[in-house]
Amino acid sequence: MSASSPLAVPHDAPFGVRNLPYGVFSTADEPELRRIGVAYGDHVLDAGAAARATGAPADLAAALGAPSLNPLLAAGRPLWTRARAALTAWLTEDRHRAAVEPCLLPRADVRLHLPFEVADYVDFYASEHHAGNVGRIFRPGSEPLPPNWKHLPIGYHGRAGTIVVSGTPVVRPCGQRKAPADPAPTYGPSRRLDIEAELGFVVGTPTPLGSRVALADADDHVFGVCLVNDWSARDLQAWEYVPLGPFLGKSFATSVSPWVVPLDALAAARTAPPARDTEPLPYLDDRAAPTPYGLDVALDVRINGTVISRPPFAAMYWTYAQMLAHLTVNGASLRTGDFYASGTISGPERDTRGALIELTWNGEEPLELADGTRRTYLEDGDEVVISATAPGADGTRIALGEVAGRIAPAV
Amino acid sequence: MSASSPLAVPHDAPFGVRNLPYGVFSTADEPELRRIGVAYGDHVLDAGAAARATGAPADLAAALGAPSLNPLLAAGRPLWTRARAALTAWLTEDRHRAAVEPCLLPRADVRLHLPFEVADYVDFYASEHHAGNVGRIFRPGSEPLPPNWKHLPIGYHGRAGTIVVSGTPVVRPCGQRKAPADPAPTYGPSRRLDIEAELGFVVGTPTPLGSRVALADADDHVFGVCLVNDWSARDLQAWEYVPLGPFLGKSFATSVSPWVVPLDALAAARTAPPARDTEPLPYLDDRAAPTPYGLDVALDVRINGTVISRPPFAAMYWTYAQMLAHLTVNGASLRTGDFYASGTISGPERDTRGALIELTWNGEEPLELADGTRRTYLEDGDEVVISATAPGADGTRIALGEVAGRIAPAV
Repeated sequence: MSASSPLAVPHDAPFGVRNLPYGVFSTADEPELRRIGVAYGDHVLDAGAAARATGAPADLAAALGAPSLNPLLAAGRPLWTRARAALTAWLTEDRHRAAVEPCLLPRADVRLHLPFEVADYVDFYASEHHAGNVGRIFRPGSEPLPPNWKHLPIGYHGRAGTIVVSGTPVVRPCGQRKAPADPAPTYGPSRRLDIEAELGFVVGTPTPLGSRVALADADDHVFGVCLVNDWSARDLQAWEYVPLGPFLGKSFATSVSPWVVPLDALAAARTAPPARDTEPLPYLDDRAAPTPYGLDVALDVRINGTVISRPPFAAMYWTYAQMLAHLTVNGASLRTGDFYASGTISGPERDTRGALIELTWNGEEPLELADGTRRTYLEDGDEVVISATAPGADGTRIALGEVAGRIAPAV
Repeated sequence: MSASSPLAVPHDAPFGVRNLPYGVFSTADEPELRRIGVAYGDHVLDAGAAARATGAPADLAAALGAPSLNPLLAAGRPLWTRARAALTAWLTEDRHRAAVEPCLLPRADVRLHLPFEVADYVDFYASEHHAGNVGRIFRPGSEPLPPNWKHLPIGYHGRAGTIVVSGTPVVRPCGQRKAPADPAPTYGPSRRLDIEAELGFVVGTPTPLGSRVALADADDHVFGVCLVNDWSARDLQAWEYVPLGPFLGKSFATSVSPWVVPLDALAAARTAPPARDTEPLPYLDDRAAPTPYGLDVALDVRINGTVISRPPFAAMYWTYAQMLAHLTVNGASLRTGDFYASGTISGPERDTRGALIELTWNGEEPLELADGTRRTYLEDGDEVVISATAPGADGTRIALGEVAGRIAPAV
């Protein structure tokens, strides 16, 4: 095919045929019409239009023709597999070219939306390096990890209604702040606005109340992966979080990347999790798993263009399968659109930490940006961009895209 | 009208015309058809059918003809007021009798469902007596309340997807438990399954991200009130909750009553909150409010028919308006169907405590039931029923109905 065709994408491109992440887009002509898109090269495939143009089976065409990913998510792994096979054929086989080529739009011309309707949102705390750093900052001289940390993936529910797509401005939150030396709390804009670079997992197949998801069944329920920036107001959080956990320090906004990379695209990224030194209870024991649940996803975090960190997801102590097994071990049901994030991804080295509180050691060691300015926490106008890549099939390297957000002044 | 008419309900009946709570029901003939109902005497009014039969305006008929309360909730206070006026007229004016009488079904013949689609669920910790008791149990010799307690209504997000309607069996959850003396956690069914008697507030009118709800505007957003049993596995909770708060100890089930009592029906129940001894920040300062936000709702809690407690909602330190102002002060948006609960309602006396952990002082002082058996925490087969009443208009006393649940053995 001609090099000028939008179908002429090398197989090893970051958004090539080994990736095929799903999103939801609209165009300037029809801003109210939301459609499922698949990123391909510099274009987005209108997946519903392609299904119609190629005469796809009715169930597949219905799922891909929906205004959000939820119907596809709900359909379960057999349809996920068929959809991926169909997309691969449509984008690579000459016999589909005439039908599919008109369904590709320049990515620069579309607007991307939150790709799925979020049901419940859970945030974990699965990086040993992050939890250890936070412990050392707040409880110097004590054991850095809480006693439960290596026995279970600690998590808590976050606010699903304030999950926003990449690019949404993040308004600096107001609230109560009280330093230990202050006699009483004061009200005002957060002075310690932070990021948390995370990976998020999108649940497709639901489960009934009272059932559990075994480790080995996690992949029947998890559809794919997003990048997450779990914005955190450290001063609000520090004052509020004892005894019931984070609330307003987190609930003002959580940004996610617009592209959901299917778990199937990450098969080559699977890697053994780090060595553990604590015997897991059987429902969390992954030592006999036929394929490992660790994921070799490499992130980078930029503030105003300067790379401030390169967090490695492969260093996470708890895997996405363990998080899901734990989340449901009490019989809690899953709904289509449930979303759970890993917690801050931090590696062992300083320049692999995924939050400013660790990178600047609670503000004591400022970072210098390329423009010569220094940062402890975020300033108004700062733009944070988290992006990631991972090994794809056949020696390729696939992109997870990016999650971006700019800080707007407090109202 | 004849005493045998379902319309012959005394004005001072618990489900009389001063109450008119909303629910969602189906019938045995059409189990898949969900309809909005209004409790009236021993009957339920098919509200959509009544709207059609009386020729109600299209917007009102559409909201009342929906399969859940969400469209009515989303419509906002002007339609809530019109709906309540219309229902009052339909049920009391002779001119509507022929149209409305056929729309009343015996309550015993219908099945009640979760009355609204829950968006985000937040649970607060607003009783000073409850928080103080828990502090005394877990931190004897220290200050019972955490230092932030009187400055802000502490809250956290719970699992919206496991909110179930009254009558749904509650399966005893499994999970990790570790007593302080144990060397490591063990896995198994919770041995310390508890209740929490609470009131829940249903949000109707949404708000955009980045805005706040002032105290004085709370009633534009809160549609009505449910009873809540926030089932709690104390052993799971104790092991997991440091540092990020309750998770699996709560997320297995939260039961709500099927009838949402409109805030308008509770106008006569408004009462001044207890005296506070800490200066509130301005966004929580309700001292100049034209009407108080405390609510004189009287609950009772029964296990297998024995009343074990009579918690008074009037004793709550933080009001529903303060909870909502706090929840949104950081700019978090509200969605129609957001639901927030008060936390355990405990009064100052022992027999007004709303959780077994307090009633039995962490299991040290068992309760005796009418059948002579004793309880520290719940046993399999136990049925817990929480019910409540409040002052209604014109000297009546209205019922909030009940939230019931029976414990099924662990799977």
